[in-house]
Amino acid sequence: MTKLEDHLEGIINIFHQYSVRVGHFDTLNKRELKQLITKELPQTLQNTKDQPTIDKIFQDLDADKDGAVSFEEFRALESSLWRGPLSADLGNIRRQLSQPPPAFL
Amino acid sequence: MTKLEDHLEGIINIFHQYSVRVGHFDTLNKRELKQLITKELPQTLQNTKDQPTIDKIFQDLDADKDGAVSFEEFRALESSLWRGPLSADLGNIRRQLSQPPPAFL
Repeated sequence: MTKLEDHLEGIINIFHQYSVRVGHFDTLNKRELKQLITKELPQTLQNTKDQPTIDKIFQDLDADKDGAVSFEEFRALESSLWRGPLSADLGNIRRQLSQPPPAFL
Repeated sequence: MTKLEDHLEGIINIFHQYSVRVGHFDTLNKRELKQLITKELPQTLQNTKDQPTIDKIFQDLDADKDGAVSFEEFRALESSLWRGPLSADLGNIRRQLSQPPPAFL
């Protein structure tokens, strides 16, 4: 398996580590989402110990308003991370990649 | 950095390993997309050596029809992988998770 395949499958596995805990094993309830966010995204999302923040994230992700977050709905969080906190990483990567290689290379 | 943060950042890094090669460093042209798919998704996508397949994938991903695939457009490929080839993994995970724990646990 390549690194990219490992990353794609890894994201699924981490989602399921939390989704199986309570209720339907394929969706996150609010508590499971909070556990995932606080444990797995500590450097990426702020104020996740603050309940109103969790309530807002859960509400935003639960697109079909069925009271649970599916894997497809969870992926919207990734998009917001890439546009938001991880976009700094995108910026760093762009700066690194757009600089001419060091003289010694 | 947690495993999930590593996976999210890893996907960005792999995308950029290919996007920087030719033209705009932030988007994939068709050749870069073909290189990424054949090298990084060998177990996930079939027939990727076949040019019509690449043409079709490129056409599907290039949502704004600007002749290049941005990172946001590239993520549509992930969705199709999760609904398609990787959904078998989802299935396996579900089966593993929904089985009662072995007697000796």
